[in-house]
Amino acid sequence: MGMQTHINEDRNMSEYLYNPDILQKLDFSKSPAVFKPKISAANPGAEWMVVRPLQRADFDKGFLQLLSQLTSTGSITRKQFDERFTQIKMSGGHYVTVIEDTRSSKIIGAATLTVEQKFIHNCSLRGRLEDVVVNDTYRGQQLGKLIVVTVSLLAQELGCYKMSLDCKDKLIKFYETLGYKLEPGNSNAMNMRFEDPS
Amino acid sequence: MGMQTHINEDRNMSEYLYNPDILQKLDFSKSPAVFKPKISAANPGAEWMVVRPLQRADFDKGFLQLLSQLTSTGSITRKQFDERFTQIKMSGGHYVTVIEDTRSSKIIGAATLTVEQKFIHNCSLRGRLEDVVVNDTYRGQQLGKLIVVTVSLLAQELGCYKMSLDCKDKLIKFYETLGYKLEPGNSNAMNMRFEDPS
Repeated sequence: MGMQTHINEDRNMSEYLYNPDILQKLDFSKSPAVFKPKISAANPGAEWMVVRPLQRADFDKGFLQLLSQLTSTGSITRKQFDERFTQIKMSGGHYVTVIEDTRSSKIIGAATLTVEQKFIHNCSLRGRLEDVVVNDTYRGQQLGKLIVVTVSLLAQELGCYKMSLDCKDKLIKFYETLGYKLEPGNSNAMNMRFEDPS
Repeated sequence: MGMQTHINEDRNMSEYLYNPDILQKLDFSKSPAVFKPKISAANPGAEWMVVRPLQRADFDKGFLQLLSQLTSTGSITRKQFDERFTQIKMSGGHYVTVIEDTRSSKIIGAATLTVEQKFIHNCSLRGRLEDVVVNDTYRGQQLGKLIVVTVSLLAQELGCYKMSLDCKDKLIKFYETLGYKLEPGNSNAMNMRFEDPS
């Protein structure tokens, strides 16, 4: 019984949010982004680095601490994390993708692709880039570019007709090098906030 | 057998994408939008008007023709429409909402709320306003305002911490009257297009 429980826990912790195989076959030559040296999701440039879907184990690998470099996360318990993981997996359409430093077992980069199901454009799909963050101490290793291009190519692979993002002024140039464009007269992101997030 | 089939078809056609009850209790006094005269999702200002979730029957009520006033829809068959309806309903998070003119059984307005499940902000939810369109011939009846405020209040009711939209320059003022804001230095919407949509 103890053994069985142990095995189940292991399987549970290594459970992926989505099938990791799709990341291995993304063709980085399709992206206008320039990588020097050349890297990809399958070959991220160092043996100790892996690009993969979020796993349940990432609660213990600093995923939430990394997100807190982006914005407030509040104090999320393991139970809350597990429940949200399950909800996201069941509904589909949320591709939370991470970079792990396997030497330290720490998540050092993350980005999410969300996919909206449309009726327009022949019942098409639209991707959105969300919650992009890379650990500051890993600057200069093209990780921001790597994680954004990974989920952008993933959107294309899944059949999205376009991918959209909202960003701060200072990030426009970065995203332009990856193929994103401000469309004249049609590039305004507006928000209504309902309450102070915790 | 013939009777049974008929009943099943009827039930199927009136199937809602989501529970319509939630629209009836939206509190329009929470919105900064000014309606003259006062209307709401529950009382849209005319007896022949109803605000409700998308139904399967809306394939025959001009829903796709209305969307084609917004952008290209391609030629969507009933089978494609039904499949997308089922997919959206199963995944959840897509609140396609319409206004019907019950005199002519035509859809005259539509807007979609999509809800992203986040880890940030204590596993919060974020709403997005998508695919807003109102039939031109119904101008002056506050229908644009009505449908946008309806899905915005719905986002709040569902627990979203904020609601976002992308829009053209000429629509900024309209959305400002409804409570949406351009946030200084952080209001850029960028896109990458993968192929020409049909």
